[in-house]
Amino acid sequence: MIRRLLLCCRGEIALRFIRTCRLMGVETVVAYPAEDDGHPYVLAADQRFPIEAASAGSAMAEVLQVARLSQADAIAPGYGPLAENAEFAAACAEAGFIFVGPRPEAIQQSGDKLRAREAARLAGVPVIPGGHPGDGLGQSLGLAREIGFPVLIKAVMGGGGRGIRVVETAEAFAGALDEVKSEALSAFGCGDVYLERFLGTAIRHIEVQVLGDKHGTVLHLGDRACSVQRRRQKLVEEAPAPGLDAALRSELRLAALAIARQLGYDSAGTVEFLVADDGRFYFIEMNARIQVEHPVTEAITGIDLVEQMIHVAGGGRLSLRQDDIEFRGHAVEFRLCAEDPRNHFFPAAGRVASYAVPEGEGVRLDSGVASGIAQSPRFDSLCAKLIVHQSSRERALARASHALGEFRLFGFPTNLPFHRWLLEQAQFRNGSYDLSLLEGFELPSEQLHAVDRRAVFAAALATALAGAAERKPEGSAAVSGWKLRNDPLLAAGARG
Amino acid sequence: MIRRLLLCCRGEIALRFIRTCRLMGVETVVAYPAEDDGHPYVLAADQRFPIEAASAGSAMAEVLQVARLSQADAIAPGYGPLAENAEFAAACAEAGFIFVGPRPEAIQQSGDKLRAREAARLAGVPVIPGGHPGDGLGQSLGLAREIGFPVLIKAVMGGGGRGIRVVETAEAFAGALDEVKSEALSAFGCGDVYLERFLGTAIRHIEVQVLGDKHGTVLHLGDRACSVQRRRQKLVEEAPAPGLDAALRSELRLAALAIARQLGYDSAGTVEFLVADDGRFYFIEMNARIQVEHPVTEAITGIDLVEQMIHVAGGGRLSLRQDDIEFRGHAVEFRLCAEDPRNHFFPAAGRVASYAVPEGEGVRLDSGVASGIAQSPRFDSLCAKLIVHQSSRERALARASHALGEFRLFGFPTNLPFHRWLLEQAQFRNGSYDLSLLEGFELPSEQLHAVDRRAVFAAALATALAGAAERKPEGSAAVSGWKLRNDPLLAAGARG
Repeated sequence: MIRRLLLCCRGEIALRFIRTCRLMGVETVVAYPAEDDGHPYVLAADQRFPIEAASAGSAMAEVLQVARLSQADAIAPGYGPLAENAEFAAACAEAGFIFVGPRPEAIQQSGDKLRAREAARLAGVPVIPGGHPGDGLGQSLGLAREIGFPVLIKAVMGGGGRGIRVVETAEAFAGALDEVKSEALSAFGCGDVYLERFLGTAIRHIEVQVLGDKHGTVLHLGDRACSVQRRRQKLVEEAPAPGLDAALRSELRLAALAIARQLGYDSAGTVEFLVADDGRFYFIEMNARIQVEHPVTEAITGIDLVEQMIHVAGGGRLSLRQDDIEFRGHAVEFRLCAEDPRNHFFPAAGRVASYAVPEGEGVRLDSGVASGIAQSPRFDSLCAKLIVHQSSRERALARASHALGEFRLFGFPTNLPFHRWLLEQAQFRNGSYDLSLLEGFELPSEQLHAVDRRAVFAAALATALAGAAERKPEGSAAVSGWKLRNDPLLAAGARG
Repeated sequence: MIRRLLLCCRGEIALRFIRTCRLMGVETVVAYPAEDDGHPYVLAADQRFPIEAASAGSAMAEVLQVARLSQADAIAPGYGPLAENAEFAAACAEAGFIFVGPRPEAIQQSGDKLRAREAARLAGVPVIPGGHPGDGLGQSLGLAREIGFPVLIKAVMGGGGRGIRVVETAEAFAGALDEVKSEALSAFGCGDVYLERFLGTAIRHIEVQVLGDKHGTVLHLGDRACSVQRRRQKLVEEAPAPGLDAALRSELRLAALAIARQLGYDSAGTVEFLVADDGRFYFIEMNARIQVEHPVTEAITGIDLVEQMIHVAGGGRLSLRQDDIEFRGHAVEFRLCAEDPRNHFFPAAGRVASYAVPEGEGVRLDSGVASGIAQSPRFDSLCAKLIVHQSSRERALARASHALGEFRLFGFPTNLPFHRWLLEQAQFRNGSYDLSLLEGFELPSEQLHAVDRRAVFAAALATALAGAAERKPEGSAAVSGWKLRNDPLLAAGARG
């Protein structure tokens, strides 16, 4: 049983742990960067200790020092910088603290790409076939045949769409290999290449939530779709994943269980897969921590994942059985991030001038920010998560559309306009989207204008209504110059 | 099918209707008192028309006029002043608008106490036995015997605990009757009395949510406990009602269904009962409208009551069957009202200086207010509703305790301290409370001091952190005079 838990994470995930700790009667301590003074999570904790944390090494030492000072008996890194760090997990155990996360060996094995692939193979789960070709053409072609055509040849140092070729047949292989090698050599100064099976263009990122205890029980809590990504950053996640047939869904879940069992996994974790358009799936990695998107799973299962994580870390047995876990309805999470959609999603920062969150039935908010709080460019850009849960995906998107319309954060740019735009996209609405959805993505300028006007209009209204002239949001002076009344974009936006 | 709905209600319930209308693709219009300009519900509607509404009569005419102007096809009064008004419901129908509520005859029959009692009798549901005694002692005693001892003799004009007696036996009846009559005559100038069965001192208010359509289907959606009342004003409600055995719960639900069927009830409504400590129950009244506390039922059933109400008003059939309705977990609602617990709960008013709501898993907010909004003393004191839903009552109360601690409304006093106090009371915690819980209730001064300090402390902190000196909450200058660090009340409060 854990009685006092030190949190070495910040923002919404720290607050989220604190809420569950209150429910469990567990006291909380935060070790926090001093510039977060006054942030909601810092105020909510029972004890708070500012730390310096110039580097990961010093952070570890400082966190352990705070754990001793505060007489905590356990330490939770959330999804913070000390999560998935086997060395830290081991140091916690060595210093006599319970680590709220998997055992160090499971972290290490999950984090080592080769060992994780090996665990998947042992569990009978496919990984993307691939490897480094040898020097001779015969050896390279042999590997390509083994992988199976079409094959992807990619420069080890490649990027930005250069140094990469899809080869359909053995006949075309030799020529393409030479091309990629010489292109790589001239562009990146290194001619090394890697071969991998080409999965097609419509690849989906699907993951499965798993939960294990220290007594050998491992369960899955269903799947999530995470293909709305911009530069490998997830922006919107949903559960269950749309567009999976029952057989594939079941296979993915069983594969995740098999891998978690193979790793001796004893906490909450996530097994990530790529699903190709032919329905084949491949294990890519194991995330040995709680994830940002865990609330969509909580919504459809009714299970508090953080509570379970704390419970099993303290040595408790999972009282759930696989058959007890029922899935109800559909949930979608939207990450509200401090980044500027008008400026290539460049990270934004500043002080929250005013903040109002969506409310009502089927809406959950997990905010890290509050009015008056400074969003620092030094940290994660995630400000808040909106989670919408309804009986069906269609209803969830309709509810989300209105909820996003109720959301207000003034003080710096956020990606709220992106989310409103996303909800209008046919591929997203019908659930057929894949990882190509946001390839080379910038918000269409038309949409941006609509969004700008709405935000400025709303800000001007709010300012006028509050009778507070002192803190005009940027740009509000320009409102009168626009034809607000008959603007079709604005009218469309006003329903959102 | 309703396409454009005029709302003649305000605050949170108007906003709540608007959210569901968006989900259903129904456009919304509000007819609102002009002083509500800029309130969230007014801004959220697709169309808005300020009205004068000096009296109920003029309100009716004005609302119908707005309905015509806005080309609405339906009108919903929520739980506003035009709800449960058979004349208004009939006027809507006559003017060609769909009324979102029961048919006028059902409203009339529900609202007429004698007719409602008669409907209950016909449905085989007990009402509190009672009646006006005749002039002679023989006749009075006959009625008393018929009612059954113990009998309550109460002055028709009585109040404040005067002019009321419980009589245990027939022998004591004559003397008590004379006493009450003469006490009533001298105190209230009228000696008329009423006899009623004495239900004991531990009476609970339990109600059952019903839902009917225009095709003869009537369902129940379970019970709610509403015994946390101060001067007949409900403050906290929960579902399901705690402390009912399965047989009694089932009897109450069947009784509610029987009454609703007897009334030909064709909308969402509530059947209210008193439950005596001997387990006997009595019908008291039917509320022919949506109620403030409906979200606790929505939480445990997963059914959107407002959606169902709109659906059946438009002539739709209930697609639910009684067997489809499952009850999951436990939900509690806390009404945040503008009233001053330091001043006998006197209604408060003012402008909301800052507002921050609880968040996280299992928390639903339905706010009528927002930062910068004026709370008028002319209207309902209800500012917001916090609904907490968890797998068990114990967890719901633990979650509520933390959520109430996160709630911040500065600008005028609210009953937030009352809710925090309530959660500490053994009778409430163990679910054994009844209508006597808040009899002659004032917040204990100790609790009030703790609350004051916390609020002022939090306000001072928030002000300091936001770096905004311009709008100091009242009394924040006094913070430094207190020993905050070692104050046990503050420390205890900080967990809340």
